[in-house]
Amino acid sequence: MMRKGMEMGGEGVEETGSPIMRTAETLLRVLPMALCVLALIIMLKDSQANEYGSLSYSDLGAFRYLVHASSVCAGYSLLSAVVAAVPRPSTMSRAWTFFLLDQLLTYIILAAGAISAEVVYLAYKGDTSITWSQTCGEFGGFCRKATASIAITFVVTLCYVALSLISSYRLFSKYDAPVAYSDKGIEVATVRS
Amino acid sequence: MMRKGMEMGGEGVEETGSPIMRTAETLLRVLPMALCVLALIIMLKDSQANEYGSLSYSDLGAFRYLVHASSVCAGYSLLSAVVAAVPRPSTMSRAWTFFLLDQLLTYIILAAGAISAEVVYLAYKGDTSITWSQTCGEFGGFCRKATASIAITFVVTLCYVALSLISSYRLFSKYDAPVAYSDKGIEVATVRS
Repeated sequence: MMRKGMEMGGEGVEETGSPIMRTAETLLRVLPMALCVLALIIMLKDSQANEYGSLSYSDLGAFRYLVHASSVCAGYSLLSAVVAAVPRPSTMSRAWTFFLLDQLLTYIILAAGAISAEVVYLAYKGDTSITWSQTCGEFGGFCRKATASIAITFVVTLCYVALSLISSYRLFSKYDAPVAYSDKGIEVATVRS
Repeated sequence: MMRKGMEMGGEGVEETGSPIMRTAETLLRVLPMALCVLALIIMLKDSQANEYGSLSYSDLGAFRYLVHASSVCAGYSLLSAVVAAVPRPSTMSRAWTFFLLDQLLTYIILAAGAISAEVVYLAYKGDTSITWSQTCGEFGGFCRKATASIAITFVVTLCYVALSLISSYRLFSKYDAPVAYSDKGIEVATVRS
């Protein structure tokens, strides 16, 4: 089994369970936690008042969703980093839990970044056909802070795409490969076993 | 190898390469193609003119992106359905291509659905704090068609989440499981091989 892994999987695969790889995965989970907290703080402090009125992140549904998504993501990242840091054998249920939650968080944080980016885009450009004004002309500071928070959220998304990849590798490498289709597939399998 | 797969993977895993499973995967790729074309047609025909003016999907950046994403998704779904339908051994490069493209399409179509949903939400609710009007009051038909198109896009997203899961299983089940960490991990492995 070990030999097959080395031949098929190429370099690095057989070391995935080593302390170095575990440390790397833990760091990859701590990084989005730190970034989520940063994005959260920037967004929570994002409000501006001037002669045109006042604007706060909580006035926009998309930014409220970003704040919630960042909080959930920071909490999950911390929790999963702690679990990933503890050396113990990887069970199927643990691999499935990591896989499903990593995938879910990736979709949640991607959606949060995408809809917030769309709102900031509309606030910068406006849309004359549906009479939505260019709010960033009056609230430049507000828009810049929101943009910074969204940019950080997209970096978090990239981290989570990588984590999804790692956790799906960890899960599915526990299963055998599906039988490659051929006209003699069943006969070959019978002979082998 | 076969026996291990049956023991570890549980029911169904050993049949993944069978013609039935291949047909199921092909259908799961044809379905989002049909849905993408439907979402595309609804969105492309979505325009309304009345006493307040006229509004078309192309006036909104988010809907233009949805149209592009649906086109790409429909094209890729058709192509991948054809490739998945042909019976031939699954190679590593093919599994990696499917895996990466399925993941990418999932993120693209999820983002398209999310930002379009945000725009429709804003068009229905408006946002008084940044003086964006409730456009759907005047353009109800336009908003209903857009909502239908977005709802279909979310069904496509669900199909692609399932396809990502299948293609990551197909790819990573070809690799050996990482060595479960233990203090004696290396010694045990040496003894076994």
